[in-house]
Amino acid sequence: MLPEWVYRDCPAISLRHRDAALVRQSELTKPAGALGRLETLAVELAALQHAARPSAERAPIVIFAGDHGIAAQGVSAFPQEVTIAMMANFAGGGAAISVLARELGSPLEVVDAGTLAEAPLQGIVTDKPRRGSRDFSQEAALEASEVAFAFECGQRAVARASARQPDLLIFGEMGIGNTTASAAIAAALLGTGPDLMAGSGTGLDSAGRERKARIIAAALLYHGLQSPGASPERVLCAVGGLEIAAITGAIIAAAQGRIPVLVDGFIVSVAALAASRINPSCRPYLLFSHASAEQGHHLVLQALKARPLLDLDLRLGEGSGAALALPILRLACALHNGMATFAEAAVPGRA
Amino acid sequence: MLPEWVYRDCPAISLRHRDAALVRQSELTKPAGALGRLETLAVELAALQHAARPSAERAPIVIFAGDHGIAAQGVSAFPQEVTIAMMANFAGGGAAISVLARELGSPLEVVDAGTLAEAPLQGIVTDKPRRGSRDFSQEAALEASEVAFAFECGQRAVARASARQPDLLIFGEMGIGNTTASAAIAAALLGTGPDLMAGSGTGLDSAGRERKARIIAAALLYHGLQSPGASPERVLCAVGGLEIAAITGAIIAAAQGRIPVLVDGFIVSVAALAASRINPSCRPYLLFSHASAEQGHHLVLQALKARPLLDLDLRLGEGSGAALALPILRLACALHNGMATFAEAAVPGRA
Repeated sequence: MLPEWVYRDCPAISLRHRDAALVRQSELTKPAGALGRLETLAVELAALQHAARPSAERAPIVIFAGDHGIAAQGVSAFPQEVTIAMMANFAGGGAAISVLARELGSPLEVVDAGTLAEAPLQGIVTDKPRRGSRDFSQEAALEASEVAFAFECGQRAVARASARQPDLLIFGEMGIGNTTASAAIAAALLGTGPDLMAGSGTGLDSAGRERKARIIAAALLYHGLQSPGASPERVLCAVGGLEIAAITGAIIAAAQGRIPVLVDGFIVSVAALAASRINPSCRPYLLFSHASAEQGHHLVLQALKARPLLDLDLRLGEGSGAALALPILRLACALHNGMATFAEAAVPGRA
Repeated sequence: MLPEWVYRDCPAISLRHRDAALVRQSELTKPAGALGRLETLAVELAALQHAARPSAERAPIVIFAGDHGIAAQGVSAFPQEVTIAMMANFAGGGAAISVLARELGSPLEVVDAGTLAEAPLQGIVTDKPRRGSRDFSQEAALEASEVAFAFECGQRAVARASARQPDLLIFGEMGIGNTTASAAIAAALLGTGPDLMAGSGTGLDSAGRERKARIIAAALLYHGLQSPGASPERVLCAVGGLEIAAITGAIIAAAQGRIPVLVDGFIVSVAALAASRINPSCRPYLLFSHASAEQGHHLVLQALKARPLLDLDLRLGEGSGAALALPILRLACALHNGMATFAEAAVPGRA
């Protein structure tokens, strides 16, 4: 059973602020619509933030890390100990997301939501019900109580980040094997063939990818998830992962707290899909940052009716794609808030 | 006759710095290729800048404004006086590019390369051979000496910007009627039908767009430019514009000075096409920022074998699309320069 709070409605967007933002966009010194998606972004943020002047300045980043029993089946190009080593690299400032957070002025929190680490690591929040998930090719990855714990881990992270009065939140992930778990979740939720959903992750070749797809297909059959219809909770127990469940909970908690979420790539999008299935009222709070090079991402985006901002062949995870899109949101807000109107600048309108 | 300097070779890229950058990318703590186009961008900049650590910090923006005689044929949704009013808005800080320049910390220079303004405007560099171009539906838009003057105006702007030791340059434009002149130039250079090249500019409806295409087609016939093969110089005289010729010269001058150019949308891309035809050795210095919503842009990009970074339905001009892509370049450099290597972070490599 998921915690009861996950089903609570998220606040409605403000139609009043949306309409005022649309009027303002029509008055700025540019042809109507000439700033394309930056206009719709600014209007969307104004509606979500109930603000005349939207903002994307304060954008904390939280990375959730977890290990995966399925890694024992050789589904990743990298060894399992990389999960813990990379957690230390995040905290130490050397990873891609560490560099991006620094450049963007975003605080970065790393949460061990379920890695194999035996002792808490310095500079990392440890908040896990167990060390790693079970090998879902052999048994259920997680018990219901473990998934529930992970949802609350996500909620706790949002509560900590909320102290900073964020304009939006970015969630990232790390976990050797987590594209396999994510592909299994998405295939189960959408009824899509694992061969279409399994990507090359950190760098499998085509034989490795086919093997990964076969392992997922066999697991879905074993868990009775080969056709869609199972609840997201059941899917997360069978083939999920702790960091993925934590992000699912974090997304719902953020939206309930009226905080937009800038969604990263494949894995966070799968968590967003699960979150939207569990609590559809969170969907308006999701902004999609980029189209990943990971094979299954476009199918997940399609199911979410999402059109991401960037398409730069990224497939790193860590929240890096969302971080890269943050300047676009900030500039969209700056333009909305800072441009002169036709009247202010005494520029003639259409002929 | 174009000035002799435009034909001088641009410096070669540094293969040594490119190779060193490729090695460094392979050592950073991420799966090989996982940062996609950010990796190739950083490598490209390292090769162009002959630098181990590429940079996109210092990125001055120069906007060239010009008026167009063809505006008399009703090819724009906005009246001609908007060109001068918007120049004042750029200088006054209220235009989109003014806001973006401020946010990005980029100095912004506005050059009157050929507007109808009778007296120099405050805060604007006046550097023009005449006020506006002639109506190319009736006669040649520019004399050869006027096109040559505009090329040198571009060169002078690059010389001024070079004093700031720029990492790269952004050129923008403003000029009511300049999508019509640009579409005519591109159609003539590429032998493409004006119906495919003429877009809606500042907001023509489909009837207005068809009319614009017919006016261009008739003018190309009148000037003997209906099939490709004419020199870019002859095309610029027949159907060009002063700000477009100035940007063409500025692109060549920047590349000759080993300064990469982050190319904006339709109009700057047409100038880049002309520049690449006049002096092909400038092509490696061109980075393409965004795919415009203006109809003909993808054809120009295709001819330049260019794949832009962003696709956000922009169609504003002013250099705004290039400015929006600048954070991507900056973050690509920060990642290249600031991430830890596998050895530094003691992260295990591939299994």
